[in-house]
Amino acid sequence: MSHARTNKDQLLARTRRIAGQVAAIERAIADEAGCAAILHQVAGVRGAIAGLMDELVADHLQSHIVAPGLSDADRAQGGDELLAVIRRYTK
Amino acid sequence: MSHARTNKDQLLARTRRIAGQVAAIERAIADEAGCAAILHQVAGVRGAIAGLMDELVADHLQSHIVAPGLSDADRAQGGDELLAVIRRYTK
Amino acid sequence: MSHARTNKDQLLARTRRIAGQVAAIERAIADEAGCAAILHQVAGVRGAIAGLMDELVADHLQSHIVAPGLSDADRAQGGDELLAVIRRYTK
Amino acid sequence: MSHARTNKDQLLARTRRIAGQVAAIERAIADEAGCAAILHQVAGVRGAIAGLMDELVADHLQSHIVAPGLSDADRAQGGDELLAVIRRYTK
Repeated sequence: MSHARTNKDQLLARTRRIAGQVAAIERAIADEAGCAAILHQVAGVRGAIAGLMDELVADHLQSHIVAPGLSDADRAQGGDELLAVIRRYTK
Repeated sequence: MSHARTNKDQLLARTRRIAGQVAAIERAIADEAGCAAILHQVAGVRGAIAGLMDELVADHLQSHIVAPGLSDADRAQGGDELLAVIRRYTK
Repeated sequence: MSHARTNKDQLLARTRRIAGQVAAIERAIADEAGCAAILHQVAGVRGAIAGLMDELVADHLQSHIVAPGLSDADRAQGGDELLAVIRRYTK
Repeated sequence: MSHARTNKDQLLARTRRIAGQVAAIERAIADEAGCAAILHQVAGVRGAIAGLMDELVADHLQSHIVAPGLSDADRAQGGDELLAVIRRYTK
């Protein structure tokens, strides 16, 4: 992911926010907070994970498939990798 | 979630595993690991979040809606809370 | 689903709209419409399916779990049925 | 989607199967079949929609982004179209 230098700080910031959300869920469970509130926290972190996935897919697509100058074989491999993860994600 | 005492340790363990997965994603991004590998890590944590959600839904359903001895009003409120989070989750 | 008489017409109308969306996708593929347009049609029908699922879950929850006067055994069975489908759906 | 001629029959067959599943759901609602059975039918059609989406994404990726001989501008446009639909789908 050396190509992602421009995006790296943003991806790290996103991931740290997700870590913070997960830590808050852990505290809520430990403190026996209300069920409904915890369920909404989990729905929130799921949305944040989807957002991270979107950014990583965009980054992969740009760097390994779309970018000018790649070889046909590079693009084919990048495409196969992308499809494998999309298939896993949409299951 | 005082009702969840029996499940509390299990829910905490699940949440800590998710925290570990998120920390591993953060390290992978920081270390500029391969895109495809990171995408699969994110797909993995998404599955773990779905598993946590399922457990919390089961717990809420049992404790606030199905459990014998609840009032009709309690069940109605528990049902409304569950639907709100399912609607958010399935969007 | 005899309980759903009040909702039955609405559920049928939703399902027929989905059938119409699927028929439109079939025509678009047959006519070799643009890829991106077809992908958005499929995303649209997926959202409509999620909406139908939400309505059916709400109906099942109300009629078989929350409704006053059910036996404890009825509620337990209704709850198990709901969890089974939620687990399948969130996978 | 003129490029999809090789896949067209397969995509049409998939879409027709989905149409059949939706028609079966409509009949089940009309006949007041059991809630739990209908919920599983809807979960099944959701899975089939996801499978159709995967095939269409694979087709779009190959034809408009990966294929040798495309211009840089073509690939950039194909990539933007793909991301737009993935962002919609993962929401």
